[in-house]
Order: sequence, then C-alpha cells, then structure tokens
Amino acid sequence: MPQELVEVTLPEKAGPSKHPATVWGASIGDYLIHRLQDFGVRDVFGIPGDYVLTFYGMLEQSELRLIGCTREDCAGFAADAYARINGIGAVCVTYCVGGLSLCNSIAGAYAEKSPVVVISGAPGMRERFADPLLHHRVRDFETQAKVFRHLCCAEAELNDPHTAMREIDRVLATVVRRRRPGYIELPRDMVAVVPDGPHMPSFKEPTSDPETLSEAVGEAARRIAAARQPIILAGVEIHRFGLQCELLEFAQGAGIPIATTMLGKSVVSEQHPLFAGIYEGALGREEVTRFVEESDCIVLLGEFLTDINLGIFTANLDPIRCIFATSETLRISRHHYDGVLLRDFIVGLHRAGLKTPPRRLPQRPEQDVQPFQLRPQEPIRIQRLVARLNQSLDGTMVVIADPGDALFASSELRIHRQTEFLSPAYYTSMGFAIPAALGATVARPKRRPVVLVGDGAFQMTGMELSTVVRYGFHPVVIVLDNQGYGTERMLLLGEHKFNDVHPWHYSKVPELLGAGRGYEVSTEGEFDAALAAALMDTDHLQLLHVHLDRNDYSMTLERLMTKLRARV
Amino acid sequence: MPQELVEVTLPEKAGPSKHPATVWGASIGDYLIHRLQDFGVRDVFGIPGDYVLTFYGMLEQSELRLIGCTREDCAGFAADAYARINGIGAVCVTYCVGGLSLCNSIAGAYAEKSPVVVISGAPGMRERFADPLLHHRVRDFETQAKVFRHLCCAEAELNDPHTAMREIDRVLATVVRRRRPGYIELPRDMVAVVPDGPHMPSFKEPTSDPETLSEAVGEAARRIAAARQPIILAGVEIHRFGLQCELLEFAQGAGIPIATTMLGKSVVSEQHPLFAGIYEGALGREEVTRFVEESDCIVLLGEFLTDINLGIFTANLDPIRCIFATSETLRISRHHYDGVLLRDFIVGLHRAGLKTPPRRLPQRPEQDVQPFQLRPQEPIRIQRLVARLNQSLDGTMVVIADPGDALFASSELRIHRQTEFLSPAYYTSMGFAIPAALGATVARPKRRPVVLVGDGAFQMTGMELSTVVRYGFHPVVIVLDNQGYGTERMLLLGEHKFNDVHPWHYSKVPELLGAGRGYEVSTEGEFDAALAAALMDTDHLQLLHVHLDRNDYSMTLERLMTKLRARV
Repeated sequence: MPQELVEVTLPEKAGPSKHPATVWGASIGDYLIHRLQDFGVRDVFGIPGDYVLTFYGMLEQSELRLIGCTREDCAGFAADAYARINGIGAVCVTYCVGGLSLCNSIAGAYAEKSPVVVISGAPGMRERFADPLLHHRVRDFETQAKVFRHLCCAEAELNDPHTAMREIDRVLATVVRRRRPGYIELPRDMVAVVPDGPHMPSFKEPTSDPETLSEAVGEAARRIAAARQPIILAGVEIHRFGLQCELLEFAQGAGIPIATTMLGKSVVSEQHPLFAGIYEGALGREEVTRFVEESDCIVLLGEFLTDINLGIFTANLDPIRCIFATSETLRISRHHYDGVLLRDFIVGLHRAGLKTPPRRLPQRPEQDVQPFQLRPQEPIRIQRLVARLNQSLDGTMVVIADPGDALFASSELRIHRQTEFLSPAYYTSMGFAIPAALGATVARPKRRPVVLVGDGAFQMTGMELSTVVRYGFHPVVIVLDNQGYGTERMLLLGEHKFNDVHPWHYSKVPELLGAGRGYEVSTEGEFDAALAAALMDTDHLQLLHVHLDRNDYSMTLERLMTKLRARV
Repeated sequence: MPQELVEVTLPEKAGPSKHPATVWGASIGDYLIHRLQDFGVRDVFGIPGDYVLTFYGMLEQSELRLIGCTREDCAGFAADAYARINGIGAVCVTYCVGGLSLCNSIAGAYAEKSPVVVISGAPGMRERFADPLLHHRVRDFETQAKVFRHLCCAEAELNDPHTAMREIDRVLATVVRRRRPGYIELPRDMVAVVPDGPHMPSFKEPTSDPETLSEAVGEAARRIAAARQPIILAGVEIHRFGLQCELLEFAQGAGIPIATTMLGKSVVSEQHPLFAGIYEGALGREEVTRFVEESDCIVLLGEFLTDINLGIFTANLDPIRCIFATSETLRISRHHYDGVLLRDFIVGLHRAGLKTPPRRLPQRPEQDVQPFQLRPQEPIRIQRLVARLNQSLDGTMVVIADPGDALFASSELRIHRQTEFLSPAYYTSMGFAIPAALGATVARPKRRPVVLVGDGAFQMTGMELSTVVRYGFHPVVIVLDNQGYGTERMLLLGEHKFNDVHPWHYSKVPELLGAGRGYEVSTEGEFDAALAAALMDTDHLQLLHVHLDRNDYSMTLERLMTKLRARV
C-alpha cells in the first residue's frame, strides 16, 4: 500500500511529555503555559479583556502564539478546528462577556469530541470578599463556571495556590483522554502567584485491562474470520485519536473494505483501493447502502450513531452482526466489554492476522467515471459546482463545509488523494466554516482551505475573514448564495419570509478588509474561470460569490429533506 | 414643571391584561403567542431553525412581527434594547446552536435587569425515547435548560400539556415582576398540542405589605424632612419599572435635586431644573461628587451599586445618611424593610408632602456654557467630537453607546430635552450598541439612534446593520477607530500587539449591504460636515468612520484608568 496515503494527525511535537520535570518556583500562569505546550498546544485563539490582561501579557512573552480574533465564538470555532487537526487546541478569553460568548462553540466541540481547552480570566479572589457588583458579573462569581460544567468534560477554578497545578494537570489529562473540551478559570490575582514547594507534573497514560482486551479481541476476530463479507465503518474518532495508521494496517492486512459516514468523511482517503463509499442509510447512494447492510459482519470503529450519520434513522444495521468500538464503549452483538481502549482493540485485531476473501466494491458515482463537461452559458447549479470543484481538489487542500447544503453537497465530493475534510456534521452549527478555516490554517499552514459556506452562515461569522487576512492566510471561500436558509425552505413547505436573508455584496468583502480578491459567479463558465483564477493566486484570500437559484439543492439534501419533513 | 419633560416608558398596550379571558381549545403555541401579546410584546427577534420551524410558522400567522437577525447573539442584544424601551421583549431561536449562542446577551440582560423572554425550540418528546444522538444535542436533552437556569430568573420546559399553560403564565409573570430574562423551551411536537379542558390565565399583581410600607415611608419622610440638603440618586430601575412620572412628582413636589449614575443616565432629562449631574465617585466631575457626598440625606432610588457606577469603589456614601430603595431591597441607614415595592415607596414619599429648602446646583460643565468653536483643520479628538455632537442632539434621537471609550465619552454628553441614552454600563459587553440600535428602533420607530461604537466592538456585531437596512431603518453610526482595544491599552501599559485589530474600511459597509452612505472623517471640519449631512439624510443608514489617534481618550476614561490600573 503506498505510504503517502497514510496520514498521521498528531504533529511530532504533540502529545503529553512522558517524563515531565519537577517544577520549582513557577507561577500558576507560567505553569499553565508550560503544560499547554507539553500537551501540544502551539497557538492560542482569543480576545483580551481586563480580567485576563495579565495572563495575556504572560502569553505574549511565551513561545505560544496568540491569534486575536474578532469575536469569541469565532475564536472557539477556530480553536475547535485547530484541535481537530493538531490533537489539542486552546482559547483564552475574559470573564463572562468573553466566556459566555463561547458557549455554543464549546458545546459543538463537546458534541463532536474536539479537545479544546477554554481558559477564562476572572475577578481576583481578593476583590470578591464583600460580594461587590464587579462589571461583567451575572448572578454570582461562579455563574460562568457553573455554565461550563454542562459543556465540558472537566473544569477547574484556580482559586487555591495549593491545588492549582494539580488541577491544571487533571483538566488537561481529561481533555486529552476524552477528546472533549475542558474549562480552566484563572482569577486575575492568581496568575502571578508562586505556590509553596515543588510540583511534580502528572500524566497517567490510560491503559486497557489486558484480560478483557484479549477476550474482546478474540471474540471479534472469530466473528470476522467466520464472516464472508465483513466491512469496516470508520468514524470520526479514528481521526480524533490519530488512529489512521492502525486502521489502515488492520484493513489492508485483512483485506476488509472501509466505508465512512459524513462526520467521518476523509478519515481514510477516498481514493484508497479499499474505500467503499459514504454510508448514510436511505440518504446515501443505494449501492453503498446495500453494500454495507448486506455485510454479514459490520465493524464500526470510532463511529458516532447520530441522526444525520444514520440517515435520519433509516440505517438498517442489525446489532447481532455489529462489532461497535468507540473511545467510550465496546459492544459485540448485544453484550459489552468495559475498559478496552479503541487503539488497543484495533491493534489487537490487526495482530490477529485475519484474511478475508476479496469482495467487489460498489460502483463509483458517475462523476468519478465520466469527465466533467463544462456548459459555459448554463446557470451554475450546486450539483455541477461540486462536480467541477472535484476536478481541482488535490492533496494541498483541506475542504471545510458549513452545515446546510454546503455540507450535504460535499458528501458528493470525492475527496482525492490526501485532501482533508472538516465539518460539524453532527452538531451542525451554522457559521463554523470560516473561523474553522482560520484554525485549520494556523494548525497546518501548508494546507489551503477551500471553504463551502451558505449565505445565511456567512452572515453569522464570515467577517472572521478579517483575522484570516490579518495573519496573511489565503483560503478560497465559495459563498453559496440562494438568498436565505435553503435547508429550512425544504423543511417547511410554502413561502416563509423568515427564511430569507438580506442580500449582501459578498464579493466586496475583500475590499472592506483591504486584502484579497472577490468574484461574481452566475454561470458554469464564470465558476470555472473564477475557480481557476482563485486556485492560481495562492497568495491572497479569494472569495467567490456564487448566485444560485433559490430552489437549487444537492441530491443528498433532496433525499434528506423528504425524510426529515415528516418530523418537524 | 413642563409636562413634556416627563416620559413614560411603557407603551399604552404594554403590561399584562388585568382580566384575561378563560382560554378554550388553544394549542400551547397559540397560547404562548397570545400571552406574549397580553404582556406587551409586539415584535419577536430571532433566527429560525428546524426544531422551532413549526412555531415560526405560527408566529408568522400571528399579529406579532418577526424580526430576523443575522446571528442569535445580536437578536438577544436587540431584544434586550427593545425590552428596555418597551417594558418587555422576546427572542425566539432553535435548540442549542441557537439558544447557546444567546448566553452572553441574556447574561447581560440578567445583570442589568432587562425583561427578555427567551423562547427556544427543542427536539420533540416522542423523538427522545431511545435517547438518540439527534443533531444539535450536546450532553443530554436538558443541557440547554440547565445552562439557562444560571442566566434567567425563571425557566420552563413545556414538556407536559397539563402544566404548559400554567408554566407560561408563571415565567412571564416572574419576568415582569423581576425585570430579568426568563426561559421557555418548546419541544417541537408540543407546539400544536391542545391541552384537555379550559385554562384561566393567571397574573397576580405584586403588592406591598401595607403596615411595613407605612412604617418605612414614615421613617424615610422624617429623615428627609430633618435634612437640610437632601438629594436623590436616581438609578436605572426608575426606567425599567416605568417610574419616571412618580420620581419627578416626588422630586418636584419636595424640591429635591436629582443626580444619576452612568447606568441610569437619561432616567431624567439632563435639562431638568433639578438635575444635578452624573455621580461617579472620584471619576466624575468634582463639583457633582462634592454636591452628592456633602448631602446630609441621600435617597438612592432604583440604583445598582456596581463598580463602574461607584467610580470603581471611590464613591463615599456613608450608609447612615442613605435611604436605599430598589426593586429587591429597602434599606434605611443600617436596617432593612422587606415586602415594600419601589413604586409604592416613591409614591408614599410624594404623598408625604415634603418641602426642602432650595439649594444651589453644581455648575454645568464648560461645554454647556460656552458655545462649541469649530477648528476645521485640527485632527478630530474624542472630547471635541462629543462636544460637537452635543450641539446637534435633540428629542428625536436615542444615543446608544457601546462599552469602552464610546461609553465613557458619552458621560460627557449632556443629554438634551428628551433624548434617551442606552448602554450596558454595568455588564459592559462589547458589541451591544449596533444590535441595540435595531431593537430600539423596532420598539420606537420615530426615535433615530445615534450610535457610538469602537472599532473593536464594531468588528464583533457591526454587520447586524444588515438587519437594520433590511427593515428600512436609518441610524447614524459613528465608528470611533483608534485601531484596537483602546481601554485595554490604558490598563496594561506598554505596547501589546494583542490590543490591535485589523483595519477595516468601515465606510464601505453601506456599499456591501447595498444601502446607506459612508463617510471618512479625520478632522474637526470633516466631522462637522459629515454629521450635518448624516443628520439631514433621515432616510438612510449613515456610517461615519472617525479616525482617531491611538492614544486619544476621553477625560472620564483617563480618570477611570488611573484607578483601575492598580487592580488588573
């Protein structure tokens, strides 16, 4: 198997230092910075504010790079995208007006397992004695921490020098183990405090229980060996936990085909000889659905069983034929094993040395087989746009799709070579894509983002392109303008004015920001020319304003909406 | 006293219907709409989404007007400003991706007592049985409701037809009584459910305990009568609870001077013969500080004792000389009375028929006495801008100031005639002003907003001007561009790059939105001309991009920063 198909997510420097040195005489703020670096953080997104200014001053002096955004929620989305690529991310904001603006981004990171560390400033402990109404306070001084308890897997208020360093270790370790956001609140008068005595940084690598692991792998291997047509359904956790190598070794060794779901799109190259397609129940291509559902052993690895991933519950996967392993659970047929790590399970299956008979993969979609034929005078349609874009994707790019038809249309994109794909395909928060392009580029500057975003979503966070050009980045942004919230038009039939948005002249955004180039696109010919020009000019932001018909939809969205409409 | 100085906040239609009719056969969604109208809501801000689409369809059919915003947080700020002017406001969004984007706006409404009703869609009860991973879900189905419990004074999940209508009544009544936000979550399969049997809408007007009221008013009146130099410090609750008439009747009858604080600015006309100035402890003008602190009886009515209102705790108000009445507490010297309504207390004091000797008011600031002399070639400075603006304010306008120097500079504005003033002077969330201009105009279309906003804040929410022009509104927006977060530059000395923001060509925003006019302003002459032109053109959005020196500050900010710097 060609080695360049295999891609490891974590950069070399990432991951916790295994042998941390005992720390003497560091302040709490310094220690936090030091440990963020140990765990692989190299950049911090955020916006300063008075309760976090001292810590910002410290960050500025450190090796961490500060990426100042225009809004906190955008900083959160950027840190999320960064964490998905880098293995861990961080965002640093001020108290309440900053932190409470992060709730939605961090909720999305929680839902889709992205390890983002939230650092918030707070009023000093000494300021709080008389319970005064300090600015930015909501109800009591703990309000913000209480809110984040519902949105994070671990949280700490560093209000005691004796426990602060242990608390930092605990939150970071939990974030990395569970791949979910964690919350650290730093009162401004604690930043420079040096705790008494030395501190030994702690990090315990989680391990599987050896007997349980052996029994689980044994049973799974027997079931796979007995199957005539096994298949792997690879989910997004393969990417989050950096298990692409392990997955491919297992699949290639045993010769088992791999399908993915929307949320897991691009965890394996879609040009891989074993790649079978994207499984979406009744929403997906029929050949792929049949191929997966007819398998007599379905090995789900790192998969989220969400409504959209399951084709709005039209998926038909009989539990008795399923082996279902994630970072949280391992289920074979109808029984469970506790204490088995996903990595160990996959490696164990590989070591079992399975071999399965070759199986004919589902036919590829027509657009992959037939070359794209331009019809220059035709009004541009979303399906044709995707087909044309497909031609130009290569391994130097990362495709980022916002929820809505940008996402659904992307499922028709066949991600070539090493192109990566990022999207909030479960939490589906509109406005993710543009700030995510920022985060993705900071994490891996050599990959150029190609962003697909609807007009409604662009109006939410599109101006974060300000930060993109501020730091000299140059994504290709394709604004799909169907004059409103198109997905919702499909859901509630009839004309509803509330699904319309105000028409912006999106191609003027580069002018407003003083950088980049805008294009107006209405026909296939104009899209072809604009895309070619945009891909040529690799030094500047490129923004294509694509005028679509308000009733133009991707094939996937049409299939999805027929299912969803019954439920609204 | 001329009657036109008195202004009542609540529109005629507002306030709960006193004699609601028994409701038969209404669905839960219809009942909610009906009760929102009873309580004075005429417009609802928000963004649709699939979990709330059915209810949006119902809203569209109702007499309530839907105001579609670009982002949920902006919808929240707009509803907050609307509530401050109209007496109650509402925002309606979808589950989690919508609701959790509202956290910061609603926290601000809580902190500053603005009665906003949050309505969120949610997954249907029938969809939840198997605990599936429906899109937009974070941890469990209650996550969003748990978060809002920390940010609201009342919350209800309408998951039971038998209690839904009572729950709606309870939340709305609490919102109105406490002037804080409330939260109503409406699962999508409950919207159209018609509960069995009739429902009698309930609303119990809160009342004071008569004996306690009489004792408290008696004691307060004796203290005021015995004082030689009493003063009233009027706070923002006077505005929130619509007590301007009652306050003025009391003050005018007894001849007591009135000062306000920043948060309460404009609760009385600053041209009123009894108006003594804005009290801000050591931060304010010395004449006013002395005038207030030398009084031998200080009657604080509806006042928030916040850090900024108290001049970062430099206020010097001896409790033994204070009568402190708010919607939540009544304290005279060092003892408390429970169960006395602010309105009843003020009316009681008026009925006591007090008379106090006339007292010479503090001198007015120079800018009020000396006419403004234009120096056309001079670079424009914030102090001069405020002085020039002051000349042009009149009773057809509402001044809206964003936190930062836009707010501090505004304290030097002498609000003329009936000009109103809106600002989040306690919670100080940047980005409030532009969406608030939307909310203020929807609430009272005849008042033209004049918005003062910094460049950093404009980058957060300025594009909500999209909604402003969509609905044909035409505020005057003054962007104070000092190339970054100016207030923070004052707080942490030295050059810190993180306080800079990317330079936008703000005056091009009207072009991007396809409506309105932009101006470039660098000198006093240019500001004078642009302001005059902007005020003349009352039919379109006007945006003035004012280029300030990065080290230019208002007098108030300079005084404030000297105090704050010691604490960061």
